[in-house]
This record gives sequence, C-alpha cells and structure tokens, in this order.
Amino acid sequence: MSGFKVRTDLALEMRESMEESAGECRGVSVEEDYREESEIKITKVIIETMNGAKAMGKPMGNYITLEAPAMTQPDENYHQEISEELAKQLKEIIPGIEQEISIMVVGLGNRDVTADALGPNVVDNLVITRHMVKEYGKVAFNKKQVHMVSGLIPGVMAKTGMESQEIIKGVVEKTKPDVVIVVDALAARSTRRLNRTIQISNTGIHPGSGVGNHRNAITQETLGVPVIAIGVPTVVDAATIVSDAFEKLMRQTGEEPIDIQDELLSGLGELYNMYVTGKDVDFEIKQISHIICNALNSAFENF
Amino acid sequence: MSGFKVRTDLALEMRESMEESAGECRGVSVEEDYREESEIKITKVIIETMNGAKAMGKPMGNYITLEAPAMTQPDENYHQEISEELAKQLKEIIPGIEQEISIMVVGLGNRDVTADALGPNVVDNLVITRHMVKEYGKVAFNKKQVHMVSGLIPGVMAKTGMESQEIIKGVVEKTKPDVVIVVDALAARSTRRLNRTIQISNTGIHPGSGVGNHRNAITQETLGVPVIAIGVPTVVDAATIVSDAFEKLMRQTGEEPIDIQDELLSGLGELYNMYVTGKDVDFEIKQISHIICNALNSAFENF
Amino acid sequence: MSGFKVRTDLALEMRESMEESAGECRGVSVEEDYREESEIKITKVIIETMNGAKAMGKPMGNYITLEAPAMTQPDENYHQEISEELAKQLKEIIPGIEQEISIMVVGLGNRDVTADALGPNVVDNLVITRHMVKEYGKVAFNKKQVHMVSGLIPGVMAKTGMESQEIIKGVVEKTKPDVVIVVDALAARSTRRLNRTIQISNTGIHPGSGVGNHRNAITQETLGVPVIAIGVPTVVDAATIVSDAFEKLMRQTGEEPIDIQDELLSGLGELYNMYVTGKDVDFEIKQISHIICNALNSAFENF
Amino acid sequence: MSGFKVRTDLALEMRESMEESAGECRGVSVEEDYREESEIKITKVIIETMNGAKAMGKPMGNYITLEAPAMTQPDENYHQEISEELAKQLKEIIPGIEQEISIMVVGLGNRDVTADALGPNVVDNLVITRHMVKEYGKVAFNKKQVHMVSGLIPGVMAKTGMESQEIIKGVVEKTKPDVVIVVDALAARSTRRLNRTIQISNTGIHPGSGVGNHRNAITQETLGVPVIAIGVPTVVDAATIVSDAFEKLMRQTGEEPIDIQDELLSGLGELYNMYVTGKDVDFEIKQISHIICNALNSAFENF
Repeated sequence: MSGFKVRTDLALEMRESMEESAGECRGVSVEEDYREESEIKITKVIIETMNGAKAMGKPMGNYITLEAPAMTQPDENYHQEISEELAKQLKEIIPGIEQEISIMVVGLGNRDVTADALGPNVVDNLVITRHMVKEYGKVAFNKKQVHMVSGLIPGVMAKTGMESQEIIKGVVEKTKPDVVIVVDALAARSTRRLNRTIQISNTGIHPGSGVGNHRNAITQETLGVPVIAIGVPTVVDAATIVSDAFEKLMRQTGEEPIDIQDELLSGLGELYNMYVTGKDVDFEIKQISHIICNALNSAFENF
Repeated sequence: MSGFKVRTDLALEMRESMEESAGECRGVSVEEDYREESEIKITKVIIETMNGAKAMGKPMGNYITLEAPAMTQPDENYHQEISEELAKQLKEIIPGIEQEISIMVVGLGNRDVTADALGPNVVDNLVITRHMVKEYGKVAFNKKQVHMVSGLIPGVMAKTGMESQEIIKGVVEKTKPDVVIVVDALAARSTRRLNRTIQISNTGIHPGSGVGNHRNAITQETLGVPVIAIGVPTVVDAATIVSDAFEKLMRQTGEEPIDIQDELLSGLGELYNMYVTGKDVDFEIKQISHIICNALNSAFENF
Repeated sequence: MSGFKVRTDLALEMRESMEESAGECRGVSVEEDYREESEIKITKVIIETMNGAKAMGKPMGNYITLEAPAMTQPDENYHQEISEELAKQLKEIIPGIEQEISIMVVGLGNRDVTADALGPNVVDNLVITRHMVKEYGKVAFNKKQVHMVSGLIPGVMAKTGMESQEIIKGVVEKTKPDVVIVVDALAARSTRRLNRTIQISNTGIHPGSGVGNHRNAITQETLGVPVIAIGVPTVVDAATIVSDAFEKLMRQTGEEPIDIQDELLSGLGELYNMYVTGKDVDFEIKQISHIICNALNSAFENF
Repeated sequence: MSGFKVRTDLALEMRESMEESAGECRGVSVEEDYREESEIKITKVIIETMNGAKAMGKPMGNYITLEAPAMTQPDENYHQEISEELAKQLKEIIPGIEQEISIMVVGLGNRDVTADALGPNVVDNLVITRHMVKEYGKVAFNKKQVHMVSGLIPGVMAKTGMESQEIIKGVVEKTKPDVVIVVDALAARSTRRLNRTIQISNTGIHPGSGVGNHRNAITQETLGVPVIAIGVPTVVDAATIVSDAFEKLMRQTGEEPIDIQDELLSGLGELYNMYVTGKDVDFEIKQISHIICNALNSAFENF
C-alpha cells in the first residue's frame, strides 16, 4: 500500500513506515531509551547490513534520535537538559573527541528561508576557537585541552553557483580539520515531529534529502575525514500530509484503496514544492538552534 | 458536501466553492476581465444584499481580485504592469482620492513570521509625506496636489498586549486621516493562488480571518472613516489541503463520502496551526510587497 | 570655555561638564554608590530647583545612572547582576508598582538603524501580559499580583509621517495605562560611556535629544500619566569628539584657546549628522537590550 | 607634519595627502575625468614604480575612483547611470571579459555589522549562473556568450576561525575560476567621501586595511588568478577625524604644532576601535550595494 513514496529524512520514521507495512526488518536494529524526568526519548537505529540499507533507503551507520515534545517551549532550564543529553550523545559519536582535535562545523541551508536556516543559525552562534589557538596557543584558554573549532556557512547553490560539497571540500583541504560536523534542516513525514526531534548520524549527508536540494554527498568518502550529521525536521512535504491522511482513512474504513490512489496522487501535482510548517516556525527554529549550539559548545568544552 | 468548513479569505474562492455545491447565488454579482497582453485576470465580486452576505460569509461590499500567475517572477517590467493595474483599481475604490486627502496605510501582521510579514513590508517601503506637508506645506513637492500619507505598523497582540484595532483607533482619533488602507496576509483555499493573487475590498477587515488572529474588526463602523483592505493569500491551512484533495477524489470516483468524512476530519487535529507555504515564500513575499507598495505610491502620485 | 555646545543626553555628563567649568552647582544634588563585587557604579543626580534645571539644560527630576565597564562582555551571570540592580532602581522609581497596575512600555527609535534600535529591541523581547489578563484574568498566572504589561513600537517620523508623541498619546488614551515607560538610545559626550551606561529618569523624554529627531515631548504633561525614561548612550556626536580632544589638548598646554576655537568649529560642518560608534555596536546593543528587557521583566515580576 | 599616520584605503586620498605635504610624487600618475551631465568624477591613480608604491603605501597597479555626491539619493535613474559608468570601468579592468570566462565574486566583511556588510549584500543579490551553465549548458541562456558567475561570502575570522584567504583559496582551487572579484567596505580619511565613492583596483586586497581585520592578502600572488577589488569607504577612523581637524586648525593659525601633537595623540587612545559613520549608513549601504550589484550584472551581461 505504498505507491506514493514516503519522503522523510528521519531513519526513525523510515523504520516506523516499514513496520506498518512489513513488520520486522533484517539488518536494522533499534534501541529505545526514555528519560522519565525530562521526557526525552532516545532511539538508536543501527543499519548493520547492505540489505538493511537497501530496505531503509539510507546508508549503513548509526542514527540517534532525541525527541522532546516540549522542545520549543521558552523554558531555558529544560533547553539546558536537552542540550546536555545531546552533548552526551555527540561525545560518543564524534571520533577523537577525547583527545585534542580540529573540528569544522558546517551550517547547510539558506539563511533567508526560515525553515532552512537552522544550519546557519547554529554556526552563527558557536564558540569559534581555531584562530585563537593558532595565534596565541592553548595558554589563552587556561585549560588542559582545547579543540580547534572552525565554522563554515557555504550557502545554497542558487546563490553561490557551486555545490556545497565543492565549497566544503575546498576549505577542508586547505584547513585540514580532523572531523566535520554538518548541521541541516530535514523533512519529516509527521507534523508531530516538526521542531521537536534532533537526529545525529555518522553517515554524513546524502543528495536529494532535506528541505532544498543544496548538496551532493557530504561524507567521509567525499571529504576524506569523518562526517557527523545533525538534523532537525522543520518541514513536511505537502503531498506527504495528504497521502498520509488518506492512508489512515482507508485503513479505518477497511477499503481497498489501490485503484483510486493513483487518481489522488495525480491531483497532488500542484503541491510540488509546497511545505507544511507550524505557525511559529520562526520562533521554534531560533529555540532549537540555540539548543544545538549549546550542545556543541558543551561537547567541545570550549566555554 | 461540506462538513469541513472551507477556510478562505478570498471572496473569489468563496464564490467558487458555492458554485461547486449550489450553482447560482442570489445577491452576489460577478464580473470578470482579462488583460490579454499582461495575463492579468481581474474579478469583481459584489455582495449586494444581506442574503448574499450570509451565503458568502462575508460582509456586503466590493471585492476585486487581481490574479497573475507570473506575479513573483523576478521581472521588474512585469511587476510594473501589475502595479499600474492595481493602482488603477485602487484609484476607483479609495473615496476622495481625486481631491487632496489624508491617508493612513496600516500594515497588519507579524514582521518576524515570513508569511505574515506582508503588511509591515509594504508600509516599511512606502513614500510617507504627512510630516513633510505639515512642516513645509505643499510647496516642498512642486505639485498641484499632494496627499498626506502616514504609515502605521501596530504589531500583533502577542507582542503588544493590545488589539490592533485599539492601536489603530487611538492613532486615527489623534491624527484624523480621511481614509484608512489596511494591508494584510490572507489564507487561501488553493495553493495555486498563493502569492499570485491580490484582493482589494471596501469592507475593511473582520476578525477570525487571516494568518494569525491579530485583530478585532477594522472597519468604517469601528474607526469612523472608510477602510479599504488590500490582502494577499500567503498560506493555505494544512487541513484545507487534505480536505480538498479528498473531495476531489470522491468526486472523481463517484462515491458518497459523507460517512467517512468525519473520520478523516477527526484525524486532522494534528494539523491545527499548521500551514502550507511554498519553498520560496520569503522571496515571493518580498516581490509582492514591492508590487503593492509601488501601486500605492502610484495611486497617491507621491513620487 | 565653552562656545561649542556640549551635546549629551546624560545628566551625569552634564554635571561633570559643569564641574569642570564652574565647580558647585546649586539646585542639583549628586549621590554616588559603588557595588564593590559587581563593579557597578550608581549615580543619582537630582535636579531640585528651576535654577538647577536651567543650569543643567534638563527638567527637574531624578536621573539615576548605572555604569558597568564590562556591561557588553558576553557573560550571562554578570548581565544577571546588572539586570537585578536595574530592576531594584526601577521598582523605586515606577509609581504604583507595589500595587497592581497597567504599564505600557514604548520602544522609541528606528529598528533599521543599529545604533537607534535599542528601544524596539527591548519591547520585542518583553513579557507581554495585558491581553492575557484581559481574556483569562489573573488566574492564568497563578500569582497574587499581576501587572498588565503592553508594548508599543511607534517607529520614526520619516517612516510614519507622525510624531511618536501623537501615536503614543492616541494609544494611551485608548488603552489607559497607569504609567508609561519609554526606552530610547541616547547621545553621550564620551566614547567611554557608549553601551556601558544606563540612565533612568522620571522626567520623560524631551525634544532635540537622542540619536535621531524622533519626537516631541513625551512626558506626564503631554500624556497625562507618569512617564519613566530608560536610555542608553549608543553614539557620540562626531563634532563632540573633536571639540573634546581639542579642549583637553588646550588644557594640557596651558594655552588660551578662545580665539582659534571658532575657526576649528567652522571646519566641523561636514561632521553634521555624523556619529561615532564602536566597531561592535551591533553586538553590544543586542546585549544591553537583553539586560534592560530582563530588568523590566524582573521589576514587573511577570515571569 | 604627520606623526599621526593617516589611515585610508583610498589611493585617491593617499595621493591628496602626499600633495598637501610634498607636492609632486614620482612613479605615480593621475588622470581625472568629469561627466558633466551625471556629475560623476572619475580619477585614475596609477602607481607605476616601486618607489611610487613605497611613497603611497600601496602596491603597484591601477586604482580607479568614481565619486558622485548624490550616490545615495533614492533616485533609481541616477543609480542606473552610475552603474553603467561603473560597468564600463569594470569591463576595462577585468582580464578576459571579452571572451567567455568563469568569475568568482567574493563578498568580504561581516553581514551583521552594518558598515561592514557591503560585500555580503552585493553577492546576495548578484545573478549567479555557474550552476546553470554546468547543468544545462549555454542554451539555457539564449545568448552567444555566457560567463560562469559564482559567489562566495566567506564570513569574518571571529566567526569562522579561518582567514578569509584560506577559505577563498580552498574554493578557488576546487572550482577554478579565471578571475576573482572581491567586494569590501573600506576606511576613508574624509567623511565627505563616505558612501559616495567607489574604488576599483587590479591589485587585490592587502592586510591591515578596511573596516575590520578580516584577511590576509587576497591577490594574484596568493590565489594564482587575477584579483580585482571593488571597495567603498563606509567608515572613517575616529582618531583620523580628530587628527585632521587639528591639522586644519594649525594650518589656519600658522602655529607650529609639532610639540603638542604627541600629547593630542596620546589622548586619542580611547578612540581605538571607534568609527565615524553617517546617521543613514544602513540605508546608504543598501543603495550602494544595489549600484555595484547592477554594475557587475551589467558588465557580465548576464541578464
């Protein structure tokens, strides 16, 4: 009962969608954890085999999801809790973080389109240290261990004429970070998850996902250094909303929808390039950028 | 075949929706005009009687719609054509514009939420003359006739603690304009119309419409001077999208949808406060603000 | 040794300038306080008589200045200390704050000109309660005492065609607050004080001061309710910088500068409408807006 | 009569300053041109020898200055004239522009500091073609000749941790443009020239100039391709203002200033990192960015 391709950048949702249709999925393991006090739910989806990757439509690797329903409430203490949980997960997944390394954080997306501005927002507010360490050495920081942190906002292809990947690769080769962290806005399947979910993975970023179409693959293979991706679903495809509502309805009525499905879908053409966002997307993306920024600063211990 | 209330601020769409279900509508007249060269379609919906008003769910008065599919293409000459057509319509509907009058243009909406920023954007870029005329007289302008133009951006209730209407009314009583023009972002029913349609009416603005909920009635009755409203649909309710796709499908298959409709709708709860916008909403609203701003400047002949 | 009129909105600097030239000043009392731990210096200048007012070029009333050299360092804890000190001073000067009152906070200035955006920034981030109290009553807040707080950003005359005073007065008459608090960017005499000083007074705002020229008097006399002014010097007049450097030099060399002073000043014409700001003015104004906003929220106890 | 080093990025002002003190300067030729109708003054300073370079404190090469007193008036037709004049000059100085080439336009500076945002503003609004030509070929453009234009906004070191030069060099090596054009805000000596002057040179950008300190040398030597620089003075150093006023005065009075000069300068320390800008800097920089952007689009004939 598919026909219409579910569009989601969340491994978690891909997994759910498979369960709905087929039950178990070999080569994919799932682990869930729930923090009672903070109401943060953590799900680790590990795609262990090529078969699992094929079934999921995503490369092999680890995908960690933090969900917190109240993520965008204006409650600084709660944000702090989420940031700390996120920092903990980041420290486990960033290779070499226990030593002194050089980290480049890349903010993908278009700073002038609200739902796509997450990446630029995070990098804009990060504590940057590389130039200080290079000029004054570690002594400037009065600490045992200081990572060299740099930040890059490559912009989108329509405004640069270049693939984000070209820009990042050029700067990586010139400044030689040990690891790259890319932050990006994602598309989800369910409006429930918008701006309430953070996904971390060690597989980098792959073309054709995300809000816009602003990249070729940004991965260890293409850049030559490990790439950690942090993403937040900020939009749902408008066609996905309709398709999902329809499927839900058909299931409820027990009808066999196959025949009319195609007709429905042919009518969705005008929803191309249309997205569903919440009314407060501007405010919510500011909040969540803040959470991710604090988590990165905390993971790097540069403050 | 309704059940789900169609939500649209466009008289044009209300009219279409009535035609679909019931055919003719007494007390409502419609006039269409098409500019071959510029591909601008102009529709005048006149609600002439109380019955018509009841059927349409909108007050008696004139509603003029300009539709231009290429409205948000970055083509300055074409924008100029639309602006001139709009200026022509404005000159016909603004009472007293043939003499020298005092006009207050009010930009409703939230400047920090892209899809709601149309009003503030327009007023930000308008040619303002009232203070110049008051200080230096008409001589400063080297013209026979100069309107006194003032601009007000009241902000939204969540940020001011006051109804837009309270603010506008206070300022109107203090500065005594002859006519008020309010500019606002609207909700449409069809994504086809987003950022491609401009509606002018002489009925003011009524509560419960629009993107946010930022007002009590702003009308001749409440303000004491004529109120012209200029609106552009910038969002579609997410629930409307689903409901419309569903109705279209049912019509195609010839099924009787009444029974399952309710179940569908009960599943739409999570779409509350969700809106559909195009990917380029930021860019498009900048373009269309520019068109309206130029049309107002041109209608006022203050340039 | 004047000739060139010192331009400052700070009563503190006016006082210093008088001391330099003439020593004691009757009708003006000064009280200083220094918080050892936080390095905050508090100066109260009280203009007690009409003679004092004439000498100072400022109306009778209280002027409280907080100075903190590290005010714009990115140190949240320190900002908290300044905010609390400021809140304490505000509670002493806002009439009726010990009961339940209705307070309108007005952000003067131009949000599109960095050095003039202080007022709009503060109001943008304030906790607004008036509409909640009106709709749900105090119960919504779970507190014994809740002030009704509203916020207004009138804009500048070049963009509205109206005096800020007209707009404020209209809205005051319509919404009837018990007290008005105006926040505005000021001009200082010394670059040392830029973005490091906050002045509170109970005399309102008077024309011809400040960064731009955006107002007639906004005072208890004109509005009919008490007006508290909060100001921060964000610019120094370029001509003031030159004049001050010159005077300093003349004092050092013991020369009699009177004769050449005029010639110097005639050369300063091209500095008209030129201002001196620090390189980080954008960042610093964000910080200091935050401090004032927190102080107001804290004084109102609406959080 | 120097002592205090004049700080200016304009070759034109450097030349004037030398004339004041010493008259003729060998190795430097100057050519002036005045467009009667448009009131645009064009000055070409050519530094022809190493001696000239030493005297001027600037590298050998061509420096072309356009001055237009009304540059920031809101007059679109006049802007068009300046853009066309600027385009003409650009076509003469950009090597290879008569054939089909690949051009990278780099916007230096900090987009969050008004006076430093010129470069980012220009690149933000440029017509970018490289990705279109690469994907669809020239046919997409319906023209004989199409340049591949790309745009880069590297950001400032405090926010990236990297030298602008490192970023640019990395991207140049990866995307291989034939020529690089850098746009940047400059410091002038005279407030008269602020936002009314555009300088083009074929010498690239050298450290220690400009508003901030955001670069190492960006030149043909360091990048491996020709570098054209476009700059606009948007600030004057506060210390320069004082020093200049002082010199002017001393000349008028015929005094011998040497002895007290040092004392004056020692008092200018607090002006460190202070800049003089006009009240309307935000508006003016928007206007002038627009002019430069149009001139580049016109020179590239990509529209």
